[in-house]
Amino acid sequence: MKSYQEMTSAELRSELELLEAEYRNVQDMEIHLDMSRGKPSHEQLDLSMGMMDVLDSSSDLTCEDGTDCRNYGQLTGITEARQLLGDMMENNPKDIIIYGNSSLNVMFDTISRAWTHGIMGNTPWCKLPEVKFLCPVPGYDRHFAITEYFGIKMIPVPMTPTGPDMDLVESLVSEDDSIKGIWCVPKYSNPQGISYSDNTVRRFARLEPAANDFRIFWDNAYGIHHLYDDHQDHLIEILAECKRAGNPDLVYKFSSTSKITFPGSGIAALATSPNNMEDFLSHLKNQTIGHDKVNQLRHVRFFKDISGMVAHMRKHADIIRPKFEVVLNTLERDLGSLEVGSWTNPLGGYFVMFDSLPGCAKEIVALAKKAGVVITPAGATWPYGKDPNDSNIRIAPTYPSKEDLQKAMDIFTLCVRIASIKKLLAEADA
Amino acid sequence: MKSYQEMTSAELRSELELLEAEYRNVQDMEIHLDMSRGKPSHEQLDLSMGMMDVLDSSSDLTCEDGTDCRNYGQLTGITEARQLLGDMMENNPKDIIIYGNSSLNVMFDTISRAWTHGIMGNTPWCKLPEVKFLCPVPGYDRHFAITEYFGIKMIPVPMTPTGPDMDLVESLVSEDDSIKGIWCVPKYSNPQGISYSDNTVRRFARLEPAANDFRIFWDNAYGIHHLYDDHQDHLIEILAECKRAGNPDLVYKFSSTSKITFPGSGIAALATSPNNMEDFLSHLKNQTIGHDKVNQLRHVRFFKDISGMVAHMRKHADIIRPKFEVVLNTLERDLGSLEVGSWTNPLGGYFVMFDSLPGCAKEIVALAKKAGVVITPAGATWPYGKDPNDSNIRIAPTYPSKEDLQKAMDIFTLCVRIASIKKLLAEADA
Repeated sequence: MKSYQEMTSAELRSELELLEAEYRNVQDMEIHLDMSRGKPSHEQLDLSMGMMDVLDSSSDLTCEDGTDCRNYGQLTGITEARQLLGDMMENNPKDIIIYGNSSLNVMFDTISRAWTHGIMGNTPWCKLPEVKFLCPVPGYDRHFAITEYFGIKMIPVPMTPTGPDMDLVESLVSEDDSIKGIWCVPKYSNPQGISYSDNTVRRFARLEPAANDFRIFWDNAYGIHHLYDDHQDHLIEILAECKRAGNPDLVYKFSSTSKITFPGSGIAALATSPNNMEDFLSHLKNQTIGHDKVNQLRHVRFFKDISGMVAHMRKHADIIRPKFEVVLNTLERDLGSLEVGSWTNPLGGYFVMFDSLPGCAKEIVALAKKAGVVITPAGATWPYGKDPNDSNIRIAPTYPSKEDLQKAMDIFTLCVRIASIKKLLAEADA
Repeated sequence: MKSYQEMTSAELRSELELLEAEYRNVQDMEIHLDMSRGKPSHEQLDLSMGMMDVLDSSSDLTCEDGTDCRNYGQLTGITEARQLLGDMMENNPKDIIIYGNSSLNVMFDTISRAWTHGIMGNTPWCKLPEVKFLCPVPGYDRHFAITEYFGIKMIPVPMTPTGPDMDLVESLVSEDDSIKGIWCVPKYSNPQGISYSDNTVRRFARLEPAANDFRIFWDNAYGIHHLYDDHQDHLIEILAECKRAGNPDLVYKFSSTSKITFPGSGIAALATSPNNMEDFLSHLKNQTIGHDKVNQLRHVRFFKDISGMVAHMRKHADIIRPKFEVVLNTLERDLGSLEVGSWTNPLGGYFVMFDSLPGCAKEIVALAKKAGVVITPAGATWPYGKDPNDSNIRIAPTYPSKEDLQKAMDIFTLCVRIASIKKLLAEADA
């Protein structure tokens, strides 16, 4: 098929007529499908139902160190959970705090604490005239929501295929001491599904920020969320690299089991340097007596060790890999030759990123919605919801069934084609 | 026996000699006992082990409204948990948010949010020159720790047998708009174990604070924690009373199942007015996608309804009532006629409050510690850890076994007697 870019206006108009007829047919089908959020499917959740069996009324809920998990205490989490998540995060258990059910909540609290009390004795951010964060774009909307909520000025930094534009990151953080942090999803990034290169991680570890209290918010949400056995991204462990670089306190690293066991009923973790850890705990002790240790124990007894967790992730991959293939195959089949957009080909994580012709994303999402397919709102991947090119769309393949996903993608590519032709015709008219 | 107050110095000295010999014997026994925190005992925790059986791998973890508890969502908590805790708290389920594992954490977050963003559009507290809280004393050390952490100036308000001195509360809050809140444990208070009278609650509901953003922090931690079937305190429901008084937004009411099921693995709740609820949720949505719904469901399926919970609390009472009796009987047996202190006689909750002669509390706690008995530090029941009379001691009977508790109380009253005689002798010398 001819690329849309090569077609005459007349050809485009006749193609549009066909597509709009198809679109009207789709609308008549009264479809309701949701590809908007990175949620596991029922089948994935079923994989963890065994976790409901590992503790029963005859279980001894005592930890290895003698702690009764049923009672108060253990601010850092139980030893065996720190061990398990340490293995998962490739960090020393000593450098880990196990939290409650949400790493997003830990990130929020971390910013909130910096806001009210400052980091390691530095001025509380609420007392500063301005606080800024670097936001690699496209990125994760809930990160941006937290920084926006605190009135932190967000500075977009373009993502490249190897991670954020490090020339720009280096020059910005070294010049401006009001820049206090950067949001990173370093592995199978949200929404691109790409992983930071070794060189990118090394440059992160060697940043020389003007602000003492600058921290990298390293949200390693998809550290073991591979799609394939044979093709996997590998990420240099950032804490060790920071230590090597003489910058041990530069990073807060977050992770959780939200997309391993149950979102909302998993356990979250922070890994950081001993200095940062001491700082965290001195605040945290005022906030809580401790997190849910029974659930920590439940996770440990279910997985036993990191091998159990890795085997479990393979089962997740078996369920979601075919869904990623539906997305990628449909994009290729319907748009491959049309020159109306590009997309990523991730080896893990929860998302595929689609970039339309400039100025088409909102129109595509709106068209899809009117045909019954809900997609993450256009602009959501940018700070303040404002994508300057109006081109970026996040596709979340995991939640719908394979069949529903195929229907949704058929409609999605139809909407891309319609919006693209309209855009090209408008340009030709102009 | 003669009261110490009536003894001559010579009599006191000879009594002291006997007591100190006894104390040295006790020290030789190398006892290690802990009466410091309000923690349930193993036997109490065993009561909830059945909760580990209600969900297994064959369970349907779908809520009544169709929500899959295993996945993301439901910021306010699942409907059936709101119903159950609504019944427990005597509030409409609509007025309830179910949180994570700790009501203390909810209180911290509430203050933190007022600090960073303000309450209902009012100036964030971090922007004000001074913020003050009223602290009924003696009170709960972890409440005071939160306000101290935020640099909120704490103003002690004396507790009476019917609750805080309401004349003082009314006059302070109506005059000073920098007073933004008051900590209350209205039922079976920490540490007195007393409950606010109807008149006190009615006066709270009719407060006319100078500050729009003044809130009563109503920590109803022991709402159903009775010791007796036949003698129970009854507390007027504060939200309803506030509504009646035309002050619907005056109160944040907190509770949890921490001392019903497992501390650290329970569920916490907030009850408040629709306006406050809207305000809370508008912030909370930035902090988390939702709390642990599986644990909410576990609690609901275990208790089924409020009758199940009440029956469960009777079993707790059967375990802890004999311990309260050990404390009260030993105080009466050893100190009843000596005029060296007074104590409360609670009908519920987790504590007995002891008041020594002025200036003796630190000495008593230190003596007990040297004899192997850990008691809550003297002063802990006061803001900044400073008890101006140095007389107040919180006794927590629940955690040790009855036998250990008897040993600990024997030592405690011995220490009270020693410290009291020393004090009386020092006064006689002066």
